[in-house]
Amino acid sequence: MYKLKAAEWKPKHFKMEVANRVATITLNRPERKNPLTFESYAELRDTFHKFQYAEDVRAVVFTGEGGNFCSGGDVHEIIGPLTKMDMTGLLEFTRMTGHLIKEMRNCPQPIIAAVDGICCGAGAIISMASDMRYATPKAKTGFLFVKVGLAGCDMGACSILPRIIGQGRASELLYTGRMMSAEEGLAWGYFNGVVAQEKLLETATNMAVSLADGPAFAHSVTKKCLHQEWNQTIEQALETEAEAQAICMQTEDFKIAYHAFVAKQTPKFVGN
Amino acid sequence: MYKLKAAEWKPKHFKMEVANRVATITLNRPERKNPLTFESYAELRDTFHKFQYAEDVRAVVFTGEGGNFCSGGDVHEIIGPLTKMDMTGLLEFTRMTGHLIKEMRNCPQPIIAAVDGICCGAGAIISMASDMRYATPKAKTGFLFVKVGLAGCDMGACSILPRIIGQGRASELLYTGRMMSAEEGLAWGYFNGVVAQEKLLETATNMAVSLADGPAFAHSVTKKCLHQEWNQTIEQALETEAEAQAICMQTEDFKIAYHAFVAKQTPKFVGN
Amino acid sequence: MYKLKAAEWKPKHFKMEVANRVATITLNRPERKNPLTFESYAELRDTFHKFQYAEDVRAVVFTGEGGNFCSGGDVHEIIGPLTKMDMTGLLEFTRMTGHLIKEMRNCPQPIIAAVDGICCGAGAIISMASDMRYATPKAKTGFLFVKVGLAGCDMGACSILPRIIGQGRASELLYTGRMMSAEEGLAWGYFNGVVAQEKLLETATNMAVSLADGPAFAHSVTKKCLHQEWNQTIEQALETEAEAQAICMQTEDFKIAYHAFVAKQTPKFVGN
Repeated sequence: MYKLKAAEWKPKHFKMEVANRVATITLNRPERKNPLTFESYAELRDTFHKFQYAEDVRAVVFTGEGGNFCSGGDVHEIIGPLTKMDMTGLLEFTRMTGHLIKEMRNCPQPIIAAVDGICCGAGAIISMASDMRYATPKAKTGFLFVKVGLAGCDMGACSILPRIIGQGRASELLYTGRMMSAEEGLAWGYFNGVVAQEKLLETATNMAVSLADGPAFAHSVTKKCLHQEWNQTIEQALETEAEAQAICMQTEDFKIAYHAFVAKQTPKFVGN
Repeated sequence: MYKLKAAEWKPKHFKMEVANRVATITLNRPERKNPLTFESYAELRDTFHKFQYAEDVRAVVFTGEGGNFCSGGDVHEIIGPLTKMDMTGLLEFTRMTGHLIKEMRNCPQPIIAAVDGICCGAGAIISMASDMRYATPKAKTGFLFVKVGLAGCDMGACSILPRIIGQGRASELLYTGRMMSAEEGLAWGYFNGVVAQEKLLETATNMAVSLADGPAFAHSVTKKCLHQEWNQTIEQALETEAEAQAICMQTEDFKIAYHAFVAKQTPKFVGN
Repeated sequence: MYKLKAAEWKPKHFKMEVANRVATITLNRPERKNPLTFESYAELRDTFHKFQYAEDVRAVVFTGEGGNFCSGGDVHEIIGPLTKMDMTGLLEFTRMTGHLIKEMRNCPQPIIAAVDGICCGAGAIISMASDMRYATPKAKTGFLFVKVGLAGCDMGACSILPRIIGQGRASELLYTGRMMSAEEGLAWGYFNGVVAQEKLLETATNMAVSLADGPAFAHSVTKKCLHQEWNQTIEQALETEAEAQAICMQTEDFKIAYHAFVAKQTPKFVGN
């Protein structure tokens, strides 16, 4: 089996730590509110790609340094060059950024976004493409592509955002590019919780560790089904789940849970 | 026309009463919080299958006895045996449970779930697969498959739950297995109303009777369209509805409503 | 290029004004709460069809006169005749009304509904099929097809409404035909805002003008993607958006925004 150890990776364009089987990715250009560059996009894409082979990572936390999540594509390092590219180059870029989202949705680990401060453009998209999201009261989430003269359809936003907050609210955010407050995000089901700044990383990490300590293979199957069933009929989804859950019923974790229940103990899952 | 009378059925594994053209199904193993067994799953599946031919049922209420809705698959009677089955047996089981949901979505009668107390596992799924849901403040709804080492993708949960409460909230419930409170369920659009315990069955029954007294054939068409359009394009959905509504315009109920309106009377629908 | 000027059109069955590149359509039979007729349906359909060629319209406001939005299909002028039609005629009608929704979703301009008072039947559908919705506290929105003996599946309701307010709430509204209050509509994400009656048209118009003053071509691409991705997989949606956004990156507006940012000025978009 082709396996990798994420703890050995040394990303150049962001920080990554692996502890308790949780990989924490931290964007670390706080002086610019953690913008993305061509290189960091590509490295994030490749990192999430490799997570499918990482034997030491069962959940991922995505966050940013210095009180902000991510300001999106850097105006000088990305938007400037894009204004001069031909269509071949532009498509290479938009497909690369979409490819990051594809890898985030296809890696087996649930992803928890920990959002403080500015969460804009591609940053907003990364939080959207995560499985769960926690925020501080100061989080400002903006799908602000329209502010740079572009359409709201960036990296899957027109497909994914309406499924999280509803078509009407998503339309407003995508047409206007206005900021969604933390309070709105919580009320609309975008954020799973809003906590004080000093509790943010702890909250996200606790959730990630809790998932990593759980039936990790089953979690990966949950994630795959949420993805596969995106546009299936209900009948197709029922067969998808019948097969997926039958597979999970052959895991050790299923037996472990049963025997723990009978013995009135807490199960210790092994993750497969 | 092949027709059945549901009032004549004598289910073995749950109670069923038919009154005012409403069938009320009550899980009645209150000492165990109304768990399901292989036999009750199969009998529920067959009952909802037969509802498509039942001439005396126009709406269904689903509830449980003794202050709880349903605790899901019985640990001793279902989970134990499953831990020892081969893949053929496991798939037979997961397809049978999925088949119950398929029959619930395909029968022509709207289904109203009346949820008190514990509503877990397959119980949560049955409430989810109903058309409307009422609860008491004590309702605790848990998609807790992860707690027994399984994935959240059970009986259509990854397809249906996100469409009711949004993808972010559904992800949290399915990954963590945590209980959704009645208050959350109301705020998130899972429950259509939360009422005092002594009003629960009355509320659900009143809604069911009101639907049964209405244009019942048209209700069955509404249900079919909600199902058919699940993953259609908007253009396909518009044609689906153009055909479906044109059919309804040839019913007696449409004429009855028109003539009642002109005469400033309340229409008495005949249900076809 | 085949182009039209909407300002030159003289609709017979409703009012239309074009100002600041915003077309405002006003239903103007206030004495009957602005019902629709066969003729006004057809003219609305044709008007939205022609908007795709209108060079002077970048956003649309849809509203009604006299404190009401629209009472739906006229009982005397539409429902009466329908009760006497054969299937060919009925399908012609239901396809025509569906065709209006198709044109509303396919025209390049975002549509803002300004809803006061009664918003029922086809009126509710028109608000639903708009891109954004504002209301007054008195707005009463009813998908009341069931009240005239019909099914809730009218003009795309079973496809679109669940995506805006969730499957459970939509089911209740479509099965019962009950009114949704402005307060519910706001809490459920149906309305983007609720404002005082004297501010309604101003609010909707300001939003429309703001969109018209923005990157209008990009807005039309946002609208197209929201439509195209309705039932695409996430992978398909990512490719749809990669191509769509790359196209937008070749617009003048993208360059304008970049240069304005570098010069610390507010961009003046040209709309392509």
